[in-house]
Amino acid sequence: MNIILASTSTLFGGEYLEYLKEELTRLYEGIDEIIFVPFARPGGISHDEYTAKAQSFFKTINIKVRGLHEFEDQISALNNAKGYFTGGGNTFLLVKTLHEEGVMTVLKENVERGKPYLGCSAGSNIGGQNMKTTNDMPIVYPPSFDCMGLVPFNLNPHYLDPNPDLKHNGETRETRIKEFLTQNDLKVVGLREGNWIRRIGDKITVEGSELTRIFEKGIEPYEIEPGSEL
Amino acid sequence: MNIILASTSTLFGGEYLEYLKEELTRLYEGIDEIIFVPFARPGGISHDEYTAKAQSFFKTINIKVRGLHEFEDQISALNNAKGYFTGGGNTFLLVKTLHEEGVMTVLKENVERGKPYLGCSAGSNIGGQNMKTTNDMPIVYPPSFDCMGLVPFNLNPHYLDPNPDLKHNGETRETRIKEFLTQNDLKVVGLREGNWIRRIGDKITVEGSELTRIFEKGIEPYEIEPGSEL
Repeated sequence: MNIILASTSTLFGGEYLEYLKEELTRLYEGIDEIIFVPFARPGGISHDEYTAKAQSFFKTINIKVRGLHEFEDQISALNNAKGYFTGGGNTFLLVKTLHEEGVMTVLKENVERGKPYLGCSAGSNIGGQNMKTTNDMPIVYPPSFDCMGLVPFNLNPHYLDPNPDLKHNGETRETRIKEFLTQNDLKVVGLREGNWIRRIGDKITVEGSELTRIFEKGIEPYEIEPGSEL
Repeated sequence: MNIILASTSTLFGGEYLEYLKEELTRLYEGIDEIIFVPFARPGGISHDEYTAKAQSFFKTINIKVRGLHEFEDQISALNNAKGYFTGGGNTFLLVKTLHEEGVMTVLKENVERGKPYLGCSAGSNIGGQNMKTTNDMPIVYPPSFDCMGLVPFNLNPHYLDPNPDLKHNGETRETRIKEFLTQNDLKVVGLREGNWIRRIGDKITVEGSELTRIFEKGIEPYEIEPGSEL
């Protein structure tokens, strides 16, 4: 497999996908056209608007982008494609749409056969085993929380450390992930902004500028350095 | 109906339910025993531990508390009870358990007949039309997101204003609720900590110390004062 699962598309103060540019050139080496999955619709923007945003970045690395929603037959479109990118937004909306269109498994099988895949945020969540560690609001009801399972764990993108100054009794991100572990026995990778998971063949590493926080049932959360194997 | 739906059980620096004590004495006037619904299990604590926590507060206002989980026949227990309290925790776990035990509708019907109900956080979410505006992590998959609909809108407990200093690209609470409104046409009450919704008969007001932020499809969010009708 040949995969990037990134915490975020955009670093604070940066441009869309800019910090990943070099890495994306390697991911998509030899490929001049990919399919963009726009179903997560951040802020409710249209599939066309979202696809245009992806196109304007990928033009700078000479890759043509077509939105999956443009195809009458999405299954054939995915099977014929050379590579994929799923953008961020709302994971519930993304997972619901992928299941309803019957393309979650089709995408998974193509990526498992070695076609390059980039996910950001919600698009990274669907690379995990299921979407039970998303931060998103459940604005729609998906027929299942199951995802592609491109890696043998779950992700928590935009992982955020507790803010000790906050006088608020809502749960911290760490509390939420620990609650997940009371109901599920599955590793969760808390992926801070600036980091991404890289899978090349069977080797899975975490890359980027920050430490990565790992949560497992029955042990205290711990941090790993960029470049560590997962 | 005779209902309190509170943003939180505990104010920063305060004791469990302390800030609601006077209001709860009125809610449960003439009642010496209630049933506690412990299914949201904050931090994964057991039903017994959570029930003990509720008992230790309600002892101070001379009300006996029994956990719903203690009853073999939960439906009869709810039908025979004089009043109810559902504690906070994880809304997905709460809603899944209520649907699986077949008691969501039983609780709803009893509260609609006038028996007093207190909800905090997740326990307040289930008073709304559905759980699609919870902040919680989807750690389990409920058979439905539908809730009791004791009020004709949805709630967002622990409502939190955007923090302009945060250099982070995760969505703000306001962004999330606006995404909900792109997929649903239903009023959302952003209930800050310190506030609660009070329903007496057909009159529904928002009470407490803070302004309340209201979100509706197609208009800009707006604030209402404590005491305002909803």
